[in-house]
Amino acid sequence: MTTAKRDTYTPETLLSVAVQVFNQRGYDGTSMEHLSKAAGISKSSIYHHVSGKEELLRRAVSRALDGLFGILDEEHARVGRAADRLEHVVRRMVEVLISELPYVTLLLRVRGNTETERWALERRRDFDHQVAELLKAAAADGDIRGDVEVRLATRLVFGMINSIVEWYRPDTRGASGREVADAVARLAFSGLRRA
Amino acid sequence: MTTAKRDTYTPETLLSVAVQVFNQRGYDGTSMEHLSKAAGISKSSIYHHVSGKEELLRRAVSRALDGLFGILDEEHARVGRAADRLEHVVRRMVEVLISELPYVTLLLRVRGNTETERWALERRRDFDHQVAELLKAAAADGDIRGDVEVRLATRLVFGMINSIVEWYRPDTRGASGREVADAVARLAFSGLRRA
Repeated sequence: MTTAKRDTYTPETLLSVAVQVFNQRGYDGTSMEHLSKAAGISKSSIYHHVSGKEELLRRAVSRALDGLFGILDEEHARVGRAADRLEHVVRRMVEVLISELPYVTLLLRVRGNTETERWALERRRDFDHQVAELLKAAAADGDIRGDVEVRLATRLVFGMINSIVEWYRPDTRGASGREVADAVARLAFSGLRRA
Repeated sequence: MTTAKRDTYTPETLLSVAVQVFNQRGYDGTSMEHLSKAAGISKSSIYHHVSGKEELLRRAVSRALDGLFGILDEEHARVGRAADRLEHVVRRMVEVLISELPYVTLLLRVRGNTETERWALERRRDFDHQVAELLKAAAADGDIRGDVEVRLATRLVFGMINSIVEWYRPDTRGASGREVADAVARLAFSGLRRA
């Protein structure tokens, strides 16, 4: 667990510690006491920065959501054939997931017990919906196979991407974000079999 | 929550209730008290059937593991080109996951805090390893693309399959096990793009 010196504490480092604790104990199972211990600062020092743990949750999932929604504004997500835009979005989703791993992990584990969690779930559904629309457009163009229902295909591709949070560890000698993104794009669009 | 009449209680119905509670509360968060309440029978009646909650966990994950390992003994998993055997195994994994949904869900959520959980994780790793070996053999035959590392490909395909427990609900009007199995096999082996 990271601890930081009191005098160098910033909202950013506090957020980073909070996300670790949320991911480890679950958001529901985390108290201000746990956050105070993990951060190595008093509860009143935490309240100096934020109104409480729900604000930390909102900031953390916002960071993940901003990363994901930012993808949809990128030129390659807006211009070109739907199938190519979709491939760009899938590749970038993997990159954002890996570069913002603890934040996206937290986002994917949100349950909906508080207002902030329900807001996060709503935003996630909105994102998923926009990606599903891209898949639908690519199917209408005839670029995507017609024998797998769009909603099912979306779920399975998201399942493949989101599963990365379960095993990807940045500190192990393994594939880089770019390599995993290439692998996901190849499997999702062309499959395992050699053409 | 299912409740059953005391006089019709069998080890099978007790197991089915226990798995529901484990999946809802988490295995660690479930007490004999919770199981007794959910089953509508006394704790001593439960002890008449099993030695405790760990035995229920072992029986539940065994049912999932027996289903999965049973696939590897099927003729189409043993005879033929590795890529075709792999495709059979992937398709059947989806079918077993859906037919034994609560049991496989529990298996996938096992954390490793008790001996039974560690045993289950070990058996899961063994299964995953055997599927990875099949993928490796298919790559050696030249039937599987060479530009995605075998371990990474295995993880992503498992990620796609295992994600099904997060959204598949047997009671909603949706795809059948066979339809989901077809979709997974098509996406995993040939990808989204129209050839």
